Amino acid sequence: MQSSKEYINQHKDRFLNELIELLKIPSISADSAFSQDVINTAEVVEKALIEAGCDHVEICETDGYPIVYGEKIIDPKLPTVLVYGHYDVQPPDPLDLWDSPPFEPVIKKTDEHPDGAIFARGASDDKGQMYMHVKALEFMVKNDQLPCNVKFMIEGEEEVGSVNIAQYVANNKEKLKNDVILISDTGMISKEYPSITTGLRGLSYVEVELTGPNRDLHSGLYGGAVANPINILTKMIAALHDENNHITITGFYDKVEELSSEERAEMAKAPFDLDAYQSILDIDSIYGEKGYTTNERNSIRPTLDVNGIWGGYIGEGAKTVIASKAYAKISMRLVPNQDWEEITDLFTTHFESLAPKGVQVKVIPHHGGQAYVTPIDTIGYQAASKAYETTFGKVPIPQRGGGSIPIVPLFEKELDSKIILMGFGLDSNAIHSPNEHFGLWFYYKGIETIPYFYKYFAEMMAQEL
Amino acid sequence: MQSSKEYINQHKDRFLNELIELLKIPSISADSAFSQDVINTAEVVEKALIEAGCDHVEICETDGYPIVYGEKIIDPKLPTVLVYGHYDVQPPDPLDLWDSPPFEPVIKKTDEHPDGAIFARGASDDKGQMYMHVKALEFMVKNDQLPCNVKFMIEGEEEVGSVNIAQYVANNKEKLKNDVILISDTGMISKEYPSITTGLRGLSYVEVELTGPNRDLHSGLYGGAVANPINILTKMIAALHDENNHITITGFYDKVEELSSEERAEMAKAPFDLDAYQSILDIDSIYGEKGYTTNERNSIRPTLDVNGIWGGYIGEGAKTVIASKAYAKISMRLVPNQDWEEITDLFTTHFESLAPKGVQVKVIPHHGGQAYVTPIDTIGYQAASKAYETTFGKVPIPQRGGGSIPIVPLFEKELDSKIILMGFGLDSNAIHSPNEHFGLWFYYKGIETIPYFYKYFAEMMAQEL
Repeated sequence: MQSSKEYINQHKDRFLNELIELLKIPSISADSAFSQDVINTAEVVEKALIEAGCDHVEICETDGYPIVYGEKIIDPKLPTVLVYGHYDVQPPDPLDLWDSPPFEPVIKKTDEHPDGAIFARGASDDKGQMYMHVKALEFMVKNDQLPCNVKFMIEGEEEVGSVNIAQYVANNKEKLKNDVILISDTGMISKEYPSITTGLRGLSYVEVELTGPNRDLHSGLYGGAVANPINILTKMIAALHDENNHITITGFYDKVEELSSEERAEMAKAPFDLDAYQSILDIDSIYGEKGYTTNERNSIRPTLDVNGIWGGYIGEGAKTVIASKAYAKISMRLVPNQDWEEITDLFTTHFESLAPKGVQVKVIPHHGGQAYVTPIDTIGYQAASKAYETTFGKVPIPQRGGGSIPIVPLFEKELDSKIILMGFGLDSNAIHSPNEHFGLWFYYKGIETIPYFYKYFAEMMAQEL
Repeated sequence: MQSSKEYINQHKDRFLNELIELLKIPSISADSAFSQDVINTAEVVEKALIEAGCDHVEICETDGYPIVYGEKIIDPKLPTVLVYGHYDVQPPDPLDLWDSPPFEPVIKKTDEHPDGAIFARGASDDKGQMYMHVKALEFMVKNDQLPCNVKFMIEGEEEVGSVNIAQYVANNKEKLKNDVILISDTGMISKEYPSITTGLRGLSYVEVELTGPNRDLHSGLYGGAVANPINILTKMIAALHDENNHITITGFYDKVEELSSEERAEMAKAPFDLDAYQSILDIDSIYGEKGYTTNERNSIRPTLDVNGIWGGYIGEGAKTVIASKAYAKISMRLVPNQDWEEITDLFTTHFESLAPKGVQVKVIPHHGGQAYVTPIDTIGYQAASKAYETTFGKVPIPQRGGGSIPIVPLFEKELDSKIILMGFGLDSNAIHSPNEHFGLWFYYKGIETIPYFYKYFAEMMAQEL
């Protein structure tokens, strides 16, 4: 019987070329100028699922971008794997920091990727990782090695908060029924240290708007005599952290899950090279909440970051103006037990309380999601672990991740099954950044590993019965 | 003999139409996309000076935009007035806040301007006010009432820091020789309370750039673990003022001229309506340095304002990114005895000291200028005061202004004469803001008043001899 590795070797170039075509379409869900491209991408995914061997594929309309649903049911009595992924991508700006255009994929060798990596927006997040599942299905179908049923649910709004999929899931519980949900939209430590993400942070994303005088003013005539919304905004944002980089929002930490010293000691065993971390980012120091390590700060601790700020004159040269308005986009990463809607309310109340007289403040919630932690004693996790062990030669390290897939906890709740986060990216993939890329070694390794998950999952489920 | 008032009444429409044509040209010196328009404007000014009666007019090239020089020498033994003004304008953005396009002048009646005001970028600052002098010359020449010599020096770089005029002045001291310098680029309290500006604030304008990681990062993977340049920038800017809104830069106040309580009591006599001030700006409170009144805050006290800030994702929707860089444009208004170059150095040292490890900070000085105070016991001031008294029926109030004309102190030093700031604008003219305008009543009143200045100045100078 042919192995996935052999099949990949025979179809290497085609697997790469298909991904390149998918990456060429600028499916930027955040920017309405690209709406036709987003829709076109859904159609390419639909076609790919049919060609890979799905029996039934459909484009499901929502109030926003469509969800591509596909399935191959070989026997209703067998277990079912539901694959979730997304075909939309982050906006590529700042464009001038890309070494090659974000939607003209190129393959380049780097120190980290001696076999080459594909550089394009979405290469890793999530087109490349989502497409591994399509190609793994192709292998299993063509080689008669699909051991159970499979369903695909690929959405187009993950990068804008998965606004419509909740309704879709609620309306299609029977159709989406499954025994495990498989997602590749996260990373691993390294080629040498495979890992499986066992936790995701929650998210609350807000935009704030400050209004001072009703029009832009001359800074000579009014400077120093009226509240300048930009100066005030900097004061208000600065006040959101104290001198130890704790977040000052009243009630923010009340429900935060605190890990035991044993759990923290276990976490500290994961390999981490501070010098390499700093050197790859070109920074002379790390920075963060007092009392926690870097790996803790970006996984088990909640954070608050400004993602964008603007106001006043930002063009060439100088303009002596006091702006009428100033804006910021602010997001908070949350940990288990923090409810994102409650945190959004706490932020709003606190932020409004920071505004002095002379300015008006408006907080506009964007979107959010709950944190998620998956247990490692489930069949799903054990099957995934064994699959990595087979192809990497090492038991993967379970690791809490810092990112968010806001929709994940909802899947568990609505569909009553566990989520397995089989990510093949690296932190250095520059997702959401210029020069996003995905190592070819990891792309092919993902396609190789996924069929073993199906194999072990089906076997373990059969034993269970 | 015909009065200036009678002459204006005969030529009202033409005077207005000529200004409208001048305002149609977008002479934005800060934006190189408009360089041809700036040059075209110089040529329109050249033509206007010839038509108004100058004997000799020339366009003097500099390393930047040209200076238009014009003169009418009626008798070398008579005194000479040098008129300074500028033909460049501020950038018009934010464009969406204009009620009519900035370079398509319209006349509208408002509560404050029942006779109508002309709405356009540069209407008040400074095309409208500069053009009053051209039309006043026309009146004096056509009616044989020019009592002394006159020279014009109209530059095109005032809004970008008058970068080349210093060299021009230094190279042309003999040509520019004069007995008084007359400038209309400031305002007055109101129609009912004419005032003459006796002081200008100095200026230091800088841009700051913060760099954290060498690329934009995913806020989930790195949030809370590396210094976010936007968060740090807000902290650093917030730290530039203390809780009393004093500026915290070390040494900033060391040389500030402190006014005596008598002087402050004298200032406090100027009419000021706090309710009207707040209501016209739509603010519920004023804001500023503790221990000083609004009129003091915007005239005799130095200030620090952010004029623009930007970084990260500022487009539609949400992007969960930690920006590599964050920027701000910051200006400080200075008072007598503060040296702008020294203040720029103090700012730089202080701002750099505020940066924590994990970010790099760069301070780029833009431009600056010294503060200026003019005495009121000079012939120039007395002639101006008498001119206002003649046309307004009231002795004007001497008043320190909050704005800056950075080149003014240099004129006094290089040309050894006093500057008289005969401004006819109002604070509410929205200079540097959307919907800049200039009341027609003030435009015509300026043209009416200026010839009286020449008359009284020539008479007083003759008496002096």
